[in-house]
Amino acid sequence: MERAAAMPTPVHPQHSELRKDPWRGHWVIMAPGRAARPQPAFRRSLLDATVAGPFAAGQEDHTPSEVFAVRPDGGKANDATWRVRVVPNLYPALRVEHGPEAVADGPADKMAGLGAHEVIIEDPSKDADLTTMPVRRLTEVLWAWRCRLQDLRRDTRLACGIVFRHRGADAGATLAHPHSQLVALPFVPAALTTELQAAHAYRLAHGRCALCDVVRHERELRARVVFDGGGALAWAPFASRAPYELCVAPADHPHPFEDASEPVLAAVAATLKEALVRLDAVLNAPPYRLWLRNAPWRIPGEERHGHHWHISLLPITHQEGALEEATGVHINTLLPEDAAASLRGA
Amino acid sequence: MERAAAMPTPVHPQHSELRKDPWRGHWVIMAPGRAARPQPAFRRSLLDATVAGPFAAGQEDHTPSEVFAVRPDGGKANDATWRVRVVPNLYPALRVEHGPEAVADGPADKMAGLGAHEVIIEDPSKDADLTTMPVRRLTEVLWAWRCRLQDLRRDTRLACGIVFRHRGADAGATLAHPHSQLVALPFVPAALTTELQAAHAYRLAHGRCALCDVVRHERELRARVVFDGGGALAWAPFASRAPYELCVAPADHPHPFEDASEPVLAAVAATLKEALVRLDAVLNAPPYRLWLRNAPWRIPGEERHGHHWHISLLPITHQEGALEEATGVHINTLLPEDAAASLRGA
Repeated sequence: MERAAAMPTPVHPQHSELRKDPWRGHWVIMAPGRAARPQPAFRRSLLDATVAGPFAAGQEDHTPSEVFAVRPDGGKANDATWRVRVVPNLYPALRVEHGPEAVADGPADKMAGLGAHEVIIEDPSKDADLTTMPVRRLTEVLWAWRCRLQDLRRDTRLACGIVFRHRGADAGATLAHPHSQLVALPFVPAALTTELQAAHAYRLAHGRCALCDVVRHERELRARVVFDGGGALAWAPFASRAPYELCVAPADHPHPFEDASEPVLAAVAATLKEALVRLDAVLNAPPYRLWLRNAPWRIPGEERHGHHWHISLLPITHQEGALEEATGVHINTLLPEDAAASLRGA
Repeated sequence: MERAAAMPTPVHPQHSELRKDPWRGHWVIMAPGRAARPQPAFRRSLLDATVAGPFAAGQEDHTPSEVFAVRPDGGKANDATWRVRVVPNLYPALRVEHGPEAVADGPADKMAGLGAHEVIIEDPSKDADLTTMPVRRLTEVLWAWRCRLQDLRRDTRLACGIVFRHRGADAGATLAHPHSQLVALPFVPAALTTELQAAHAYRLAHGRCALCDVVRHERELRARVVFDGGGALAWAPFASRAPYELCVAPADHPHPFEDASEPVLAAVAATLKEALVRLDAVLNAPPYRLWLRNAPWRIPGEERHGHHWHISLLPITHQEGALEEATGVHINTLLPEDAAASLRGA
């Protein structure tokens, strides 16, 4: 009978909740509805699928209605003429329809799952890949990120928007069709605050942007540079957290990502593509995680404009453990100088 | 020729370096010597090994000389009469022999790999497991953690000591023989600072320890309690980051872990064992990560004594992704109330 009581309660697939831990400080997204997603065995078959799948052109009725699309040759919403298409996630962790009211739950806080969870379908074909796309197409993907973030920024209940993508099941992908995801949150995650504080402290101490200094220093030193595209730089950071971790950033101090110009995005896209091509050559098309680090929206203008957005690229080459999980401190067994030399030689 | 230049330089196996990221604020342990550890294919064979392996009783000359051991029946250092044995890691990420001097490296900071990296061998037999050990033996393991942390705390160059363990290759284990690890660091990781600040803010606002309040609240509510051992509680936290994440803590506000009495450790060991037995029953002996959350050493006494140490237990049930990696925000698809009900019923 205890066993019967232990069966999960059926949950509305759209229900989710944000919970704040009272003694550790973190927020968690509780989204039991996402347990209804395709399960691992089936996921593997989706990853290996030879069929078109729900994200392919012509399958638009298998996704929620689109919120944005790139259609340079015209066409209308939800038809098959798109090149990049953004839809709400079918199993959303967060929804804009929720209210922002937080309430106490014992010593903790909780609120309904306010936010956004969108899928950026990067190409009409499931066989496409960022590495082999023309730079112009990659630029359109970054443009879609920019436009969606700009739109969500207008919602004053939301504090920041995170864009990320996975390649390969070992990185967290559940569908092979190339796509990125966008999650907008009504709070700023602690890890992001830590980074902003570090950058802000550097600015207060030196009067300059830390990342601008890093770009200048890496260009002089050259040892950790993977590719210098002029308008953007790809390098293995001095304090890389894992083998072949790369950073791609605009070389000159940029506007906030949501206000980026098309030429800046094109420069970053070209350099990102070079980095991806070299990673594929050296690591034989590894699984990877990629994310955009852009400034949160509800912080003072000085800090927001002081932030230098960039893209982090993390190939999955090893199994992490409890030290990383518990402390965020990583043990890296490959010097970034050696990683960059390999990638330059590719 | 570029290819030749890209070959990793041979590195002294004991060399490591701490590097601080100037614009993201994190520290990384650069330990290229650890790349010489047994590699994945070989690691798998070590995990499956039917031979005794380097941690078994009688193989003491295959490890560095011990720094601590539990020998209730007598015997001398490095003989085979131990029940728990602590040795420096053969591939240490950090060493106490390094100096604490940090230097600038361009806009970044670095220092030699000062710290400690030890292995706590939890049983003379490779076939032992925390889940099946008698509570008295589990208490001896916690006692070994306590004694090593207490010893390292005396080194004023070190800021904190982290104890963690893996079960299973998917959790990060490289040897099947049951062991935990201890890493002492000359800085406090940002993730730990975030937690301490949250707990301290709660104390300032309410005049009470947050975790004491949580224990009281969970006992009243009962919905998330897995096992109540009287002196210690095991529960699924309100803001669990993943399915079946558990916390085990002394019920009464404890002394710092390094000063814990034997009865408190025995109470936590008994409750931890119950939690492990139930996890094994419900999840069929899952891989898991476990870590001790104890207070850093070089913080004000008020904050140190205000901290309520506890053990986190995280079964590996799913593949995490870039959102977790980039932000520390987790999406949990199983309510802790449902997880606890399953575990209570086991």
